[in-house]
Amino acid sequence: MIRIIKIGGNVVDNPELLKKFVRDLAVMPGMKILVHGGGVMASQMQKAMGMAPQMVEGRRVTDEETLKVVTMVYAGWCNKSITSLLQAEGCNAIGLCGADGNVIKAKKRAPIYVESLGKDVDYGYVGDVNAESVNAGFIYSLLEKGIVPVFNAINHDGQGSLLNTNADTIASSVAIAMANYRYRSPREVCCRCEECTHCSDDGRLTHETELIYCFEKDGVLYDKDDDSSVIPEIDRQRFAGLKAEGVVADGMIPKLTNAFKAIDSGVARVVIKHVRNLLNDKGTVLI
Amino acid sequence: MIRIIKIGGNVVDNPELLKKFVRDLAVMPGMKILVHGGGVMASQMQKAMGMAPQMVEGRRVTDEETLKVVTMVYAGWCNKSITSLLQAEGCNAIGLCGADGNVIKAKKRAPIYVESLGKDVDYGYVGDVNAESVNAGFIYSLLEKGIVPVFNAINHDGQGSLLNTNADTIASSVAIAMANYRYRSPREVCCRCEECTHCSDDGRLTHETELIYCFEKDGVLYDKDDDSSVIPEIDRQRFAGLKAEGVVADGMIPKLTNAFKAIDSGVARVVIKHVRNLLNDKGTVLI
Repeated sequence: MIRIIKIGGNVVDNPELLKKFVRDLAVMPGMKILVHGGGVMASQMQKAMGMAPQMVEGRRVTDEETLKVVTMVYAGWCNKSITSLLQAEGCNAIGLCGADGNVIKAKKRAPIYVESLGKDVDYGYVGDVNAESVNAGFIYSLLEKGIVPVFNAINHDGQGSLLNTNADTIASSVAIAMANYRYRSPREVCCRCEECTHCSDDGRLTHETELIYCFEKDGVLYDKDDDSSVIPEIDRQRFAGLKAEGVVADGMIPKLTNAFKAIDSGVARVVIKHVRNLLNDKGTVLI
Repeated sequence: MIRIIKIGGNVVDNPELLKKFVRDLAVMPGMKILVHGGGVMASQMQKAMGMAPQMVEGRRVTDEETLKVVTMVYAGWCNKSITSLLQAEGCNAIGLCGADGNVIKAKKRAPIYVESLGKDVDYGYVGDVNAESVNAGFIYSLLEKGIVPVFNAINHDGQGSLLNTNADTIASSVAIAMANYRYRSPREVCCRCEECTHCSDDGRLTHETELIYCFEKDGVLYDKDDDSSVIPEIDRQRFAGLKAEGVVADGMIPKLTNAFKAIDSGVARVVIKHVRNLLNDKGTVLI
């Protein structure tokens, strides 16, 4: 089992919450990969330096100076703080941006028409990634050694430029890449038993892969004002129904659509839960 | 052969010089490790954020806010820029702080009496390292894969704190650790020939290790105002003579003393040269 866990800036910015999360992650069994954001702190840094953060539809317009700031905040302070906290809990973590070991190569986003503004927007040093961008072999060589990769949102284009990337997309891209990565077992044989679903044609194995999005709610809620109304499980049919009912709306629609895309691409399940529930089974499971 | 190359902030801050250096490093044959500083940019960032950099005897007093800035600058912007530039030259680099893979664990410096001030100085989040602090096995596992580790000056204490460390000392500590690291050859045999100086008692091998300090002069100069007066080779006896003559004085004395310490501890030679001469044999060789 490989688990990819995504945490947002709200955890990174909250020392108490982060400390509890790090402790939980350290004792979580199995192979694991962390992906973190850090958006709030980047905006604070921009303001401290007299810059005005510019967001279009929730994405940061990233000029050269902004790229410096987000690289400093995400790949510098946030990434290294989390890594050193994990080390203190006995968890051998390694902080990575996409340039490190050439582990994720992003494609610079071309200027794109934004309907809400009625014009083309050049996001600047912003990159897009997919599962093909991910060097799963390198990640697997770390996991095999018991090392936990900790990804921030900075990637590179392979031509010497760093690029700011969406952390949710990094998490799903890494999850899909790992779900499809075929490894040789140490014994170099496949069990080929009828029960084992991990055998692939060439005798190599794949790991069952789970993608966990930690956020500030207990899961997908039936009533957005009632934290106890968590929907425990959503499949495609249920998702269609919830959309029709208007229960799942706005920002949650693309989030769940992307989650189902990951499942279509080999990820066993996607879990949406509160960061404090990492080790228990509370939350919404998408299958 | 393993080469450890140290560059200072004057290279990191100079895009033209850095680009040439990165190109040279990429084509340099053999196993190689880069260690970089970044001091000038850290002070600029501190000033941009309204902080006053405080230096005592050339070392930065590092309170909590300063630690954030140096981590952002060294482990974030400088480290990831250099790594992505190396990737663009086809050199598979990986940026590392000491917390990454637990590769270097530093010890927080206790308050220390500073003679020039006549009082104790608490340097704050400043760490000291030596060869025992370095996880040579992890570094070697990267080198074996053809990966070039790129170290910045940030390390950790293993208890969740990051620490600001002197990059020259990181370079010599890593060099000593690698010089003494015993690896098994792929054939799991030692040649045990009489000529081979790399055989050790248990049949494992050590790599010849060279430490290269790149700086803004062509080497150790006989006349500090004449760049053409480079002393090509200095051994211990010559060093004693040069000190007695007053040719080697001030900051150069501890630099050379530390270099000879590295040689005493297993490093084959230390080279002091201008960064633009990485690929040629100009410079001063200490043996």
